[in-house]
Amino acid sequence: MAEADNFFRDTPEPPNFVEKKRKIEEFVARHSNGDTPVVLVTSGGTNVPLEGNTVRFIDNFSIGTRGSASAEYFLEHGYAVIFLHRGRSLQPFTRHLPQRQLLDILEVQTGASGENQLCVKHDQSKTLFAVVEKYQKVQNEGRLLMVDFTSLTDYLHLLRASSLIMDKLGNKAFLYLAAAVSDFYIPRDKMPLHKVQSSNGPLQLSLELVPKMLDALVKNWVCSAYVVSFKLETDPNLLIMKAQQALEKYEHQLVIGNVLDTRKIEVVFVTNNDEQWIKLEQEEIDTGVEIESKIVTSLVERHRQFLNE
Amino acid sequence: MAEADNFFRDTPEPPNFVEKKRKIEEFVARHSNGDTPVVLVTSGGTNVPLEGNTVRFIDNFSIGTRGSASAEYFLEHGYAVIFLHRGRSLQPFTRHLPQRQLLDILEVQTGASGENQLCVKHDQSKTLFAVVEKYQKVQNEGRLLMVDFTSLTDYLHLLRASSLIMDKLGNKAFLYLAAAVSDFYIPRDKMPLHKVQSSNGPLQLSLELVPKMLDALVKNWVCSAYVVSFKLETDPNLLIMKAQQALEKYEHQLVIGNVLDTRKIEVVFVTNNDEQWIKLEQEEIDTGVEIESKIVTSLVERHRQFLNE
Repeated sequence: MAEADNFFRDTPEPPNFVEKKRKIEEFVARHSNGDTPVVLVTSGGTNVPLEGNTVRFIDNFSIGTRGSASAEYFLEHGYAVIFLHRGRSLQPFTRHLPQRQLLDILEVQTGASGENQLCVKHDQSKTLFAVVEKYQKVQNEGRLLMVDFTSLTDYLHLLRASSLIMDKLGNKAFLYLAAAVSDFYIPRDKMPLHKVQSSNGPLQLSLELVPKMLDALVKNWVCSAYVVSFKLETDPNLLIMKAQQALEKYEHQLVIGNVLDTRKIEVVFVTNNDEQWIKLEQEEIDTGVEIESKIVTSLVERHRQFLNE
Repeated sequence: MAEADNFFRDTPEPPNFVEKKRKIEEFVARHSNGDTPVVLVTSGGTNVPLEGNTVRFIDNFSIGTRGSASAEYFLEHGYAVIFLHRGRSLQPFTRHLPQRQLLDILEVQTGASGENQLCVKHDQSKTLFAVVEKYQKVQNEGRLLMVDFTSLTDYLHLLRASSLIMDKLGNKAFLYLAAAVSDFYIPRDKMPLHKVQSSNGPLQLSLELVPKMLDALVKNWVCSAYVVSFKLETDPNLLIMKAQQALEKYEHQLVIGNVLDTRKIEVVFVTNNDEQWIKLEQEEIDTGVEIESKIVTSLVERHRQFLNE
């Protein structure tokens, strides 16, 4: 625990930290009474700067597919969602918009009043209607809060702040920790100030281990919440074992294990009691079912049981 | 030169390489006759994988602001543009679309025919009209080709391929190398296959220097083109010297020097003959003038003179 405390003492707070905490406080307060459960969905990768005046980072493969899709399904199940995500990574709803082709699908039309307006071409509209309607409903109900981070230290400060604020929700709080968090970093006092020069020849980097925060989260920050973490491996032989180790170490509710290459079609839920594989059938793959819909449906049921304990 | 050749021999070609080369060939062929100059604008950062089954990368700060803005100004000056950019980084035209707020500015309207359609809310439309019109004009004239890369090796293979194809354009070819290219990498045979485990303790990384390709580009790939490279530093005291060193080493036409913190308001053009600072006046900053408009206007004039030599 001292390790976690030292980390927060020795690292900078994220930009706009006070404002972000205020918004999270206000959102949680609005959903404190009543039955609406609140989920913190973390999404996307954290980066680790290599220089003080940062030109280079260590980053990871995650673009937020898992988290952004899952957030939509939690919203469909009636949850309020705090979406703590890597800036510029995928987000619920907007992830369905074609980045490039957006300008190809807009056209100037003459509206009913005779004025020019920009509209989505008719043949492209249908798919977008549903997205826009869902999004605007969720906005009107005030059930989605977007908070962004970039670096590892931004993320951990915001994770701790969010967790501490959500503690008042008791077992109504759900933590879905899908963000890909850096395991290694360079402490600020060991980082070079300026851009490392290639004229100095080959580069040696020494990276220290990031303290494992899940311990402090489960035991100190949100003691009654339903906490789900992820374990991603590239070697399938390590998967179940690493998931079980995490569960034993942190004593939270569930670890979702997945292998890099197959993560979009199968995951395994590891709890104290069971190991449950969730897989997409071929027909589901063919019809575009997202595995996150099945993941979240199962988790919502598990949370419901947890709430009734 | 042997170093560059070995690099290409020892590194994988990018995905869809044959298709991408075909599109570049076709684009250049279409603009070979006539007066339209063709610029290769490179944009965004390259990443360097740290594992064979890649979970982690070294990446850099660049999101393609310089390149995407510059591409638009080259298009305005009548150039055909090959936009060789980091996938998911900023692109010409779409960079003006608000990612998040896009769903806030669309609404369902009833069209003239009584049908529902998705349109941009009236008060948001004006700014977007100009963008959509410019984009669609450029598309109709076939003057913009988008080619994407992700890793350092993707980028260098595509840079070489594009340059070799553009060689037939002689001095009509302009290379605007704004991409932030990794200086360091891990050769494939020195990379671990699987995700590095944090249970192994602190991490030591050894990175080798990437061969400087500008030499091969200027002397072998596009010998008659107008070549502009960038030099970014965090320490202003190094800027002019490093820019001059690059120019002497590679013998191309111009180096644009910029300091990380001030790159959006000032740059310096370094040539054999002169050092010319291009800066935004306070009034220009206040009215949203982009420095790239001034950069490109100056470069287009220099290219015009180069064409007349």
